[in-house]
Amino acid sequence: MKARVHVMLKNGVLDPQGEAVRHALGALGFDGVEGVRQGKVIELDLAEGTSEAAVHDMCEKLLANTVIESYTVEMS
Amino acid sequence: MKARVHVMLKNGVLDPQGEAVRHALGALGFDGVEGVRQGKVIELDLAEGTSEAAVHDMCEKLLANTVIESYTVEMS
Repeated sequence: MKARVHVMLKNGVLDPQGEAVRHALGALGFDGVEGVRQGKVIELDLAEGTSEAAVHDMCEKLLANTVIESYTVEMS
Repeated sequence: MKARVHVMLKNGVLDPQGEAVRHALGALGFDGVEGVRQGKVIELDLAEGTSEAAVHDMCEKLLANTVIESYTVEMS
């Protein structure tokens, strides 16, 4: 089974990487890009029977810095 | 309108970041993590009327290194 975790900076936390991408897109001539936020996506191959709660635990302990980042988990 | 771009290393391309996460999860006692791939997610706030083709163009020109990375675009 697989899990996909998205980790994004929380709203209100400055995202210099996203800002850099926004500027670069503007410099390349792409108009109409009003904002960019960049985050991480982590795809986990899990043994059968691994619970979603275990994946949340992984996020809390390692994958996300919950002070400044939020995460979402999708199991499939 | 918004677009969400996922950029992942292509299959067969070594992912040392993902490997590091896999080892760290094992060291923390999470069994059953068989593989980890880490990629980027980029959320774009776009002016109304921006086409999906324009977002694909952004990916080809800036957001993804198409030699080693693949990308997917979701508009919403």
